[in-house]
Amino acid sequence: MEHLKPSPANSSPLTPLGFLERAATVYGDCLSIIYNTTSYTWSHTHRRCLQLASSLSSLGIKPGQVVSVLAPNIPAMYELHFAVPMAGAILNSINTRLDARTVSILLRHSESKLLFVDYFSKSLVLEAVSLFPGSLKPPVLVLITDDEVSEPLNASLAVDFIDTYEGLVGKGDPDFKWIRPKSEWDPIVLNYTSGTTSSPKGVVHCHRGCFVIAVDSLVDWSVPKQPVFLWTLPMFHANGWSYPWGMAAVGGINICVRKFDAPTIYHLIRGHSVTHMCGAPVVLNMLSNSLADNQTKLENPVHILTAGAPPPASILSRTESLGFIVSHGYGLTETGGIVVSCAWKPQWNLSLQQRERG
Amino acid sequence: MEHLKPSPANSSPLTPLGFLERAATVYGDCLSIIYNTTSYTWSHTHRRCLQLASSLSSLGIKPGQVVSVLAPNIPAMYELHFAVPMAGAILNSINTRLDARTVSILLRHSESKLLFVDYFSKSLVLEAVSLFPGSLKPPVLVLITDDEVSEPLNASLAVDFIDTYEGLVGKGDPDFKWIRPKSEWDPIVLNYTSGTTSSPKGVVHCHRGCFVIAVDSLVDWSVPKQPVFLWTLPMFHANGWSYPWGMAAVGGINICVRKFDAPTIYHLIRGHSVTHMCGAPVVLNMLSNSLADNQTKLENPVHILTAGAPPPASILSRTESLGFIVSHGYGLTETGGIVVSCAWKPQWNLSLQQRERG
Repeated sequence: MEHLKPSPANSSPLTPLGFLERAATVYGDCLSIIYNTTSYTWSHTHRRCLQLASSLSSLGIKPGQVVSVLAPNIPAMYELHFAVPMAGAILNSINTRLDARTVSILLRHSESKLLFVDYFSKSLVLEAVSLFPGSLKPPVLVLITDDEVSEPLNASLAVDFIDTYEGLVGKGDPDFKWIRPKSEWDPIVLNYTSGTTSSPKGVVHCHRGCFVIAVDSLVDWSVPKQPVFLWTLPMFHANGWSYPWGMAAVGGINICVRKFDAPTIYHLIRGHSVTHMCGAPVVLNMLSNSLADNQTKLENPVHILTAGAPPPASILSRTESLGFIVSHGYGLTETGGIVVSCAWKPQWNLSLQQRERG
Repeated sequence: MEHLKPSPANSSPLTPLGFLERAATVYGDCLSIIYNTTSYTWSHTHRRCLQLASSLSSLGIKPGQVVSVLAPNIPAMYELHFAVPMAGAILNSINTRLDARTVSILLRHSESKLLFVDYFSKSLVLEAVSLFPGSLKPPVLVLITDDEVSEPLNASLAVDFIDTYEGLVGKGDPDFKWIRPKSEWDPIVLNYTSGTTSSPKGVVHCHRGCFVIAVDSLVDWSVPKQPVFLWTLPMFHANGWSYPWGMAAVGGINICVRKFDAPTIYHLIRGHSVTHMCGAPVVLNMLSNSLADNQTKLENPVHILTAGAPPPASILSRTESLGFIVSHGYGLTETGGIVVSCAWKPQWNLSLQQRERG
């Protein structure tokens, strides 16, 4: 039947940005982000992202241009995963642990037009920008202040930064018509690999790719609707394995955290009934060496997804005995998230039962 | 950065057929299908589908041609959701409750080249074919016998049917290179609406569409990996809301059942530790009016997804009190599955607790 042919002509491009619109409709009055004493609903998050996208457009950011960010897992970092591409721009998240020289190289290589700077990375960024040759215009700088840690704005803001993050949100139009990708193959993010073999290499992912990996990452980790997700994996690390978008798809609660140690994690797990978290094997290590006061086990099981080299059996076993359900995967900046995972086999349950019976 | 542009040129088309290949790799030794005393692993299912696709090609079925099936939820019906498109053909599942005249119209309108016929629908199909005008060639017929119900092959096979389903599987090449869609927009299924307003209308879905709806249907119902799925929703009904493909994506176990009443369902739930099932509201009605002997509640909660008009509150409440977790959605043949669903709100849990407290 040659005439039976669906056509791409009238279809919507696949993009993870649609998850935010849907979350605002379906879960508008449900919590989206909690960060210390700050909290937002999905309705707030949607509105704030539209406002920020609107301000980026007003500042002259054009579709296809790169906007960078240097920040830990604070609400701004989450919002930028939507707001930057909603202005049609490409999000470039920079590892906060890089030195000024490398940051400077990345900013030049990416031709970044604007850089959001967490207050904690201010001096790093100012140094990175000072390394630009005189002939090259550095990106416009926007400061992300943090009321939660009571950092006062200092006098240098006017000199180095055109505005603050909240200033841009406040000035933005909540009715902004966000710029949909013309094609689902349009870039949405630009990430740099850690450069273990030579200089960092840029990796571009498109809207379609991030849609597919975000949904796949939910299915493969069996993430249910409305999970409570603790951000112990840096969002600058391969876009937090695509879970910034994934959490919008399932209407989850994002528990943001600037920096953490084991007591902080246990405090947040208990305080917010965390169900899911990701982290490098070192996070499992940290968790397995400590538990919150007066506890020998978590009150409710917490799913933890780790990736890279598998943690040693002793760490896995100790982490599981504390009440974590450990999943293990592997991915690359180049793959946009985890693309290989260890699928549990039913017969392993039997082995476990046999082992437990002794 | 105009040069930063991912390209469709080297990408794989989105298709749900890939789920089967992956299931055979990841879950090869895990159960895929259970039907009475018959059971298969994902490795078996993959092999059988390749063999059947190979036989369809050998019979001269060409990419883009329509292959129909008239069968209840037996293993063959599940396998055909993969095997027919793996031969490049378009699967047309026909409602087994239609009359001979309508079946005849659908076969003619779809220009079906081959029809798989469950033994129980044999006389219906022979009558439908007899209604073809002499100038039109009816589809080639293949009989699906069913050892589980001890239906002997009768003498008429040689006259009306070119082969049996198992005959074609047996003759097929397990190393067949299945025919991948040239484009993800190529048709994979042709379904007819029930024709409530006038004659049934044909709806064509493409590989991409079925990939997206299958994955979305898993995420939206929070289906975890390796569920045990009881087939109480006809697969001929909008392709079982895309769960034939979805179950391969999560390596689930498909519990097939030819026909059922409440005792059959409870027997299967208990016998196979069913976790998920779908059904029209009438199935909830059936379940809520009966429970297995000596039971007042299911041993483990079973997720049941219903669609269409919402069941009355009394049915919902009775079904939930028996241990079912009810989800409700809505979709159309035209949408390829459920596209609207009732997202549970956290505050409803509070209301429930308050109600329970009294």
